[in-house]
Amino acid sequence: MKLFTNPDKKEWPLILARPLFDVTELNSKVKSILDEIKNRGDVALKELTNKFDGVNLSDFVVTEEDFSLAESQLDDQLKKAISFAAKNIEKFHSFQKHDIKKIETSHGVFCWQKQVAIEKVGLYIPGGSAPLFSTVLMLALPARIAGCREIIMCSPPDKNGIINPAILYAAKLSGVTRFFKLGGVQAIGAMTYGTETVPKADKIFGPGNQYVMAAKQLVSMNDVAIDMPAGPSEVAIIADDSSNASFVASDLLSQAEHGPDSQVILISKSHNFIDEVKIQIDMQVQKLPRKEIALKALSNSILIVMEDETQIIELINTYAPEHLIISTNNYAEMASKIINAGSVFLGNLTPESAGDYASGTNHTLPTNGWTKSYSGVNLDSFIKKITFQEITTDGLRELGPVIEAMAEAEHLQAHKNAVTLRLEAIGRNKYQSPRLKNKL
Amino acid sequence: MKLFTNPDKKEWPLILARPLFDVTELNSKVKSILDEIKNRGDVALKELTNKFDGVNLSDFVVTEEDFSLAESQLDDQLKKAISFAAKNIEKFHSFQKHDIKKIETSHGVFCWQKQVAIEKVGLYIPGGSAPLFSTVLMLALPARIAGCREIIMCSPPDKNGIINPAILYAAKLSGVTRFFKLGGVQAIGAMTYGTETVPKADKIFGPGNQYVMAAKQLVSMNDVAIDMPAGPSEVAIIADDSSNASFVASDLLSQAEHGPDSQVILISKSHNFIDEVKIQIDMQVQKLPRKEIALKALSNSILIVMEDETQIIELINTYAPEHLIISTNNYAEMASKIINAGSVFLGNLTPESAGDYASGTNHTLPTNGWTKSYSGVNLDSFIKKITFQEITTDGLRELGPVIEAMAEAEHLQAHKNAVTLRLEAIGRNKYQSPRLKNKL
Repeated sequence: MKLFTNPDKKEWPLILARPLFDVTELNSKVKSILDEIKNRGDVALKELTNKFDGVNLSDFVVTEEDFSLAESQLDDQLKKAISFAAKNIEKFHSFQKHDIKKIETSHGVFCWQKQVAIEKVGLYIPGGSAPLFSTVLMLALPARIAGCREIIMCSPPDKNGIINPAILYAAKLSGVTRFFKLGGVQAIGAMTYGTETVPKADKIFGPGNQYVMAAKQLVSMNDVAIDMPAGPSEVAIIADDSSNASFVASDLLSQAEHGPDSQVILISKSHNFIDEVKIQIDMQVQKLPRKEIALKALSNSILIVMEDETQIIELINTYAPEHLIISTNNYAEMASKIINAGSVFLGNLTPESAGDYASGTNHTLPTNGWTKSYSGVNLDSFIKKITFQEITTDGLRELGPVIEAMAEAEHLQAHKNAVTLRLEAIGRNKYQSPRLKNKL
Repeated sequence: MKLFTNPDKKEWPLILARPLFDVTELNSKVKSILDEIKNRGDVALKELTNKFDGVNLSDFVVTEEDFSLAESQLDDQLKKAISFAAKNIEKFHSFQKHDIKKIETSHGVFCWQKQVAIEKVGLYIPGGSAPLFSTVLMLALPARIAGCREIIMCSPPDKNGIINPAILYAAKLSGVTRFFKLGGVQAIGAMTYGTETVPKADKIFGPGNQYVMAAKQLVSMNDVAIDMPAGPSEVAIIADDSSNASFVASDLLSQAEHGPDSQVILISKSHNFIDEVKIQIDMQVQKLPRKEIALKALSNSILIVMEDETQIIELINTYAPEHLIISTNNYAEMASKIINAGSVFLGNLTPESAGDYASGTNHTLPTNGWTKSYSGVNLDSFIKKITFQEITTDGLRELGPVIEAMAEAEHLQAHKNAVTLRLEAIGRNKYQSPRLKNKL
């Protein structure tokens, strides 16, 4: 862990720099796999699944029997925990619904937004060592609440062609409508282009390894919308002497165990506190099954002693972390000044893992500084807002001349004509109100 | 104009296909210009402006004097029209604000979304034959309402180094904070990477030619967020015998005059009505200054006679038009079934040009079928939603075991520890409620 004390602002870009990956070669590999799927559909999917997942599948489709079997295999305690988390996630995301409200922008001109669910969404759940059933909840529940008609999910099968039962259980619970045993680039390609078995999605969501991320970025150029650009997960923690060094260490470690490229930053006014955290980390890391991964991530992590609170806020807003834990005494005040972060955890009793699983907020968040411009996944991610307008006769008499003047000045005569013809038909001056005369 | 009568669903993809452009060569040209700007900043911008805009600028910055001069040059009637439109746009976009509401997702677990404006936005306004001051309003007003701190605008200078006064007037009125005389790829590159003079933006908005679109897509991969992918503008009109053929023709023409690649579709139950519209188009097009452009666009346009209303709705949702005009008798009923469209215009007296300029809705909309997954520009486009959560002692006692069970099942021990350590510190069982015992 690298320690910096009151670093000068000029040094920040270097200190806060995220690792850069050269994806040129990766992109060309991924592109050729995507082309295979686009051109040869299911046949290519079968070959690629055999090649990359080491299993020969006659069918990718998860059946009702598969779901039932998964449910019967799953531990009751875990089922209850999943249901509890699901309820919180449902509550928080349902709460994000807004009613349609019409507004009369000027006399007789009515405008409104209508929220419509994206019809078909494709959700990707990575495989690998950890069965990420929590991500199933985080993606499928908001899709169901939004009202998406088709909720397609893909996740890679293991060597026996099996999907982890917790993933299937969570998928069923969350309203996934179709589930396919497909991993990596195969899943992204199938949901982008559609194949004989897999429907084409309108938008693709979900985390993944570098191949999956590269595939999502490539297809987002011309073929399908995606949730957000991705990068390694990251947490920043602001702590002071009122924080608990053991808790802070556990939070840093829970980020570090995600992967060797995880980003971990701790900022504190107190040098002493940072020393305590280091001792706690050394103790806690020993017992972790993913110790090696965590140690690798920690070797790139950053500890910053910073005395000036305004500077701390500025540094955080410059770094724009995915997760931010503020466990200082004045956490509410500091939180009010945060403008760039994905999800923020307040006080000593709100660990990041609460948001990762069960508080109700979404854990699919922008990384790599993208919190400057992107929100995390939320109900809006599954919704489009269509605008509507309707103009009355009187409305057009008043607004029409405005449109005519502007269209004329933009040299768009046909735009003007569309209004002029209508004004002539309804009688331009018939009921011209005094209000209008003042306005133009 | 091609006429189809009750086309079979199998033919739809071919009939509705948008033109495809091979951008491979374009992309490599644009990439090398972007690299120039990234590496050589202002010096490159000056060379490129000289090369592409034919003007040697010592400075790109639009000054207060430039704004004042523009205001003094502009016609009073046009100023009033711009103000009227601006008020409607402001009203509609201000109306999209939502308050922060906290929710207690489970006992003692508080979650909320905070809307925060994107700090620095970059807005591009194309030059060329028409001075698109309406687009200035559509991009800068929502940015100001959202609360963006830095609203950067770029637009190409003419051969004398001048920006059209209507554009500058609208920019000043809408709260643009910095304005640079930069066009095309230069503008996008400058706002993406930042130069000695031009600040780096967090998100870039605005229309443009193929070079601008290619540049936006390229930089969106790794460097900066963009509003949406772009394509030629398009309108679909659903009309019946209660519609006015002259109005419909004027709407089709106002789309067609945008550019030779504009997409225009008319659907009607009545063959007769379509014939009337054709006669009207032939008459109206003769008087248009942009007649040649409109005729070219019309040569690719599509007229569809379709008797079944359910099929009409399905065809529109399949095409997913940028603009949709519904001027049938039962327009409200039809509108309620539309799930894929950018902006919808209802009845006989609501021409598309109303939304292009002054009704209040935004005219920056997804094209090329992207309305299936994207909204048009709206207040949300300038805002990120940061989630916050805070858990009380009792809250963690209840939620903690849920997190522990889930983290354990995902093999993420450090995630579990972050909760376990806290539960041990506050006393896991001290106040465990009967409610919790039932739940886990």
